[in-house]
Amino acid sequence: MDKQKRILLSKRPEGMPERNHFRIEEGPVPSLGENQVLVQTVYVSVDPYMRGRMEDTKSYVPPFKLGEVINGGIVGKVVSSRSTHFSAGDYVTGHLGWQEYNAADENNLRKIDPESAPLTAYLGALGMPGLTAYFGMTRIGSPQEGETVVVSGAAGAVGMIAGQIAKIRGAEVIGIAGTEEKTRYLTDTAGFDKALNYKTEENLHEALKDACPDGVDVYFDNTGGPVSEAVYPLMNDFGRIPQCGAISSYNKSGDDYGPRIHPYIVKSRLRLQGFIVSDYAREFESGARQLGSWLQEGKLVYEETVNEGFDSIPDAFLGLFEGKNLGKQLIKVSEE
Amino acid sequence: MDKQKRILLSKRPEGMPERNHFRIEEGPVPSLGENQVLVQTVYVSVDPYMRGRMEDTKSYVPPFKLGEVINGGIVGKVVSSRSTHFSAGDYVTGHLGWQEYNAADENNLRKIDPESAPLTAYLGALGMPGLTAYFGMTRIGSPQEGETVVVSGAAGAVGMIAGQIAKIRGAEVIGIAGTEEKTRYLTDTAGFDKALNYKTEENLHEALKDACPDGVDVYFDNTGGPVSEAVYPLMNDFGRIPQCGAISSYNKSGDDYGPRIHPYIVKSRLRLQGFIVSDYAREFESGARQLGSWLQEGKLVYEETVNEGFDSIPDAFLGLFEGKNLGKQLIKVSEE
Repeated sequence: MDKQKRILLSKRPEGMPERNHFRIEEGPVPSLGENQVLVQTVYVSVDPYMRGRMEDTKSYVPPFKLGEVINGGIVGKVVSSRSTHFSAGDYVTGHLGWQEYNAADENNLRKIDPESAPLTAYLGALGMPGLTAYFGMTRIGSPQEGETVVVSGAAGAVGMIAGQIAKIRGAEVIGIAGTEEKTRYLTDTAGFDKALNYKTEENLHEALKDACPDGVDVYFDNTGGPVSEAVYPLMNDFGRIPQCGAISSYNKSGDDYGPRIHPYIVKSRLRLQGFIVSDYAREFESGARQLGSWLQEGKLVYEETVNEGFDSIPDAFLGLFEGKNLGKQLIKVSEE
Repeated sequence: MDKQKRILLSKRPEGMPERNHFRIEEGPVPSLGENQVLVQTVYVSVDPYMRGRMEDTKSYVPPFKLGEVINGGIVGKVVSSRSTHFSAGDYVTGHLGWQEYNAADENNLRKIDPESAPLTAYLGALGMPGLTAYFGMTRIGSPQEGETVVVSGAAGAVGMIAGQIAKIRGAEVIGIAGTEEKTRYLTDTAGFDKALNYKTEENLHEALKDACPDGVDVYFDNTGGPVSEAVYPLMNDFGRIPQCGAISSYNKSGDDYGPRIHPYIVKSRLRLQGFIVSDYAREFESGARQLGSWLQEGKLVYEETVNEGFDSIPDAFLGLFEGKNLGKQLIKVSEE
């Protein structure tokens, strides 16, 4: 066990990232320093926000470095430990490299309990995406009983949780997604009141208008772009728009043009507010506790798309931008 | 005195409004009902938001009706009264018709004191524009000592007050306006730290970057459009954008396209928030008191552009969209 596979950023994309922006190579299994833990990767999370890190621009997380190992959310198993907090056999999650084994500082790991929830949930409903949905919906969207909530990217890891939280709060919830399988999941399994397929609706704006006879009070936006532009004219006065992502713009090289939205913001006194989950880091514990009890009570369900094998990580990541995933996109790298 | 002039909406504009969308005609001086007051118009206020009322679309104020008298902010003198609250000779302000005389309900008028401020101030710094600047800047922009504040439409009635309030709060303030006369006024008289002429800067974004070496924390936006798009990339994390107006879009017929801004909102966790002054109606008195004491202390200055004569009202209104006014645009209709 002295060799392992790892994935590096080999080229920065302009526009849509491709398979050749990643390089899979062999490297040494790292040795442990003091207070470090050797973690074998079990599940790798790929997330849309990582697209931004492939570019060399200032953002809320530093860019990936060219020629270095890519990193992201991982669930793994402790193989050996020079930390008093972790022992071999423990399951952990953390922000680690895309490699089969990581030497991780004990401070960068959190122990997780495979009895209280499936391991994968710690990268999804109980992890970063779940917390993103929770804080974005409760702190910015803040839907009230009887209000109408629209969610774009509704069948993604964040969107499906966000919509269900709005349902728990007593709102009428309409999801927008890109396949029939997704819209069916949203209404039949996740309890959304209605779901629209933006790829097949001839006029998304008119379809939304029919679906939201009382207008829209909260628009939880994961996509930006034309989908959002179909929603803005329907926003009610004092509508809230948690701007969680803008996946439709991430891969545009050069400018991405659309109708200017300032008049809607003024006329309906809208609040568009960007956020990222780490803005709420001090409240992660209480947020995760709330999500956990909703899961246990059966008020919250989630879905995952799990690809198999270390080498499939880049393709799973690229698939996010084609909307291939229903729910959280994960890659299983080794047995639990 | 049984005939008077009045101005009606004769046609709804598509795109830029023109002189022939208004009709000046003669009508009877109205007679008074119980609790009504006959007010002779002294000053008429024309404001960019009125452009929206010329269209037949749902907005925060109902549209003007075709073939009926246009209405807006007016300062006038009481000629006769069937109200116990007002007597001939009182000065009043209210939302009244564009005509030489209005029969106004006593509940729709507010008495004003010509001793404590010039009459015109009640339509500007102490009136709707001043209160708009006050609530937008203090409640949404909320600049802190040492932060950088950019104001678009900075030489307008709202913009020049908004920037000065940010100065009072200890911020570094940069104004954007459209003539040398305006930028000079902002720096030399209104105490702005810097002012840029968006019409003559070759690259407004680069000029702003130089003018704001620490980025932008608050962007008080009156214009939307390309000016705003030069500002967004400079916004600091958690930047606030009170969206006061979008004058650059008001006269576009059909869609008005620009670069999509969702990625900036997410990346820098911006808050764009539309508002209108009446959202703060319950606090008007305290806001006006604060503005009044700043004026008296000399901490706040303002400028007005006063056209003469009832017939010049439509042209003064149209001039707003060509940026003809420095500060509040008023029309003097009769002697004080």
